[in-house]
Amino acid sequence: MRRKQTLELHPIGVIHSPYKDRGETPYQGCKSDVISGIEVFKEFEEGLQDIEGFSHIMVIYWFHKSQGYHLLVKTPWDDIPHGLFATRSPHRPCPLGLTVVELVAREGNVLEVKGLDAIDGTPLLDIKPYIPGVEGKAAVKSGWLAGKLGKERT
Amino acid sequence: MRRKQTLELHPIGVIHSPYKDRGETPYQGCKSDVISGIEVFKEFEEGLQDIEGFSHIMVIYWFHKSQGYHLLVKTPWDDIPHGLFATRSPHRPCPLGLTVVELVAREGNVLEVKGLDAIDGTPLLDIKPYIPGVEGKAAVKSGWLAGKLGKERT
Repeated sequence: MRRKQTLELHPIGVIHSPYKDRGETPYQGCKSDVISGIEVFKEFEEGLQDIEGFSHIMVIYWFHKSQGYHLLVKTPWDDIPHGLFATRSPHRPCPLGLTVVELVAREGNVLEVKGLDAIDGTPLLDIKPYIPGVEGKAAVKSGWLAGKLGKERT
Repeated sequence: MRRKQTLELHPIGVIHSPYKDRGETPYQGCKSDVISGIEVFKEFEEGLQDIEGFSHIMVIYWFHKSQGYHLLVKTPWDDIPHGLFATRSPHRPCPLGLTVVELVAREGNVLEVKGLDAIDGTPLLDIKPYIPGVEGKAAVKSGWLAGKLGKERT
């Protein structure tokens, strides 16, 4: 059966972050000025050619500290539980994280980025260029999250 | 060694698309009005609660027809090869696809979406809400791709 299919991935790098634990990451890392390092393993370095031209990149990583999931979850933004796929909870059937970050600098196989909320040691799976005409959407409705963002971890 | 680490995923659904083969997908599926169906397996349906409130969602899937990759690739947009991670080529070390799509309707465990360029039978890995204050970036530079988009498959 298709749903029992097993797909295998091997990380292409590792994320170096000042956040050592999930409890330390900000609720909205995208608004933070904290710099993280994205180390792409040397064997993949050639694949970074021309990445410097992009101000923003999309980083896909593995939530390696995530264990299990619930299909209805409470978030910091609301007292009402919402469907897992309508939230950004790290506890997901496929524990894939995705963050659009600002690319600050590149030193060989290491990218310095701003706005990444992954914790130190997170396995890196993929990097894609952020293209405003493709990912930037106008007239967007944010459902239950509308007007709720802004709360910060205290 | 970390780079030999194997991570396992199991699909949460399957994509039903009028595109039966890679050769049929438009270069810029995001601009297309074609409707695709995202079937989330019944066991995960509860996780879709409240997804209807979002006009756009991010869909992560498995490029199941992708075989191997090159670190430098030519794209339809340019005669010059670019680093794989500075392109959206489906042939990647971790064959993960990502598209921001418009959510048109939901019927139980099936989402109707516009702008998805995945082919029929693509394994679905994750769905996340698109949040304009998080994913929408201003003052973006698009590197080698700047001004090149617009070419269509003929």
